[in-house]
Amino acid sequence: MSIEKKLKTAIRDIPNFPKEGIVFKDITPIMMNAELSNEVVDYLEEVYKDQGVDVVAGIESRGFLFGYPLAMRLGVPFVLIRKKGKLPYDKISFDYDLEYGSATIEMHTDAVGKSQRVLIHDDLLATGGSAEAAAKLIEKAGGQVIGFNFLVALNFLEGEKKLTQFSNNITNLASY
Amino acid sequence: MSIEKKLKTAIRDIPNFPKEGIVFKDITPIMMNAELSNEVVDYLEEVYKDQGVDVVAGIESRGFLFGYPLAMRLGVPFVLIRKKGKLPYDKISFDYDLEYGSATIEMHTDAVGKSQRVLIHDDLLATGGSAEAAAKLIEKAGGQVIGFNFLVALNFLEGEKKLTQFSNNITNLASY
Repeated sequence: MSIEKKLKTAIRDIPNFPKEGIVFKDITPIMMNAELSNEVVDYLEEVYKDQGVDVVAGIESRGFLFGYPLAMRLGVPFVLIRKKGKLPYDKISFDYDLEYGSATIEMHTDAVGKSQRVLIHDDLLATGGSAEAAAKLIEKAGGQVIGFNFLVALNFLEGEKKLTQFSNNITNLASY
Repeated sequence: MSIEKKLKTAIRDIPNFPKEGIVFKDITPIMMNAELSNEVVDYLEEVYKDQGVDVVAGIESRGFLFGYPLAMRLGVPFVLIRKKGKLPYDKISFDYDLEYGSATIEMHTDAVGKSQRVLIHDDLLATGGSAEAAAKLIEKAGGQVIGFNFLVALNFLEGEKKLTQFSNNITNLASY
């Protein structure tokens, strides 16, 4: 069975979460399956091992789940992109608009060096707003976004459209 | 150099975070060091591989960082303990008191089976409040808490006192 098939078998649809009319893709059954989890990390390592990734940046908090194991496999630093106020050290921040209101994400100033090749990872690509904000934050820090990786992509929301301005190297393991 | 020495060399003290008078232990430099990160997971695997752990439960969100890689190494499910409203599926919850106010943590109902041997992991043991709440949540679900693991422990806050009611198997990699 392909990795996509295995992931889709594991992923659970949760209707009306977090709000009415949205079908949430619950990835926790993947985490409950150690064999599949290891297979995902093996697969990601294979995809990215020859791409000259200097840093993997994971978006809080589900982006930590596969982002960090991937960085460990690639032997590169893992950087946390978090919501405002969560990171303790000197920070660089980026404000962006949401459907209603706005949000701020932050990263430590020592997290990404000038011209470093950064792979951005998150569990899910929906409208692409947070991945786009993460890419802008990386660029603000002087880094170079060389790709995006998602475990799951909701293609009907066309999130990739927001990301090709940074990189065309957008991969995901399970598409809907 | 011992793993504790290496971790203490990496961990950064941040005075007055998150509030005046508190010295925060910043573990992000560990994540930026892939060699050290892998060494931590190797070490944890060695400690827990023969303890009959059925499930590793990680406390949101920094508990996801080492909890999940450890679960993958042990070949057991990784379970997410999250703040109220974050998990999408059927949930079991536990309310507990904080210094000011209260908090609720949740776990999916299918996360821990009856009598399963659960290792609770978090990045930091401070006063022990959230680890104690996590243990109560595990027990409420029918699971058996067979130990606690922390990357860092602030021993002067005596958090272990809250945890020995569940298990005396409390380990951490760096003590202050």
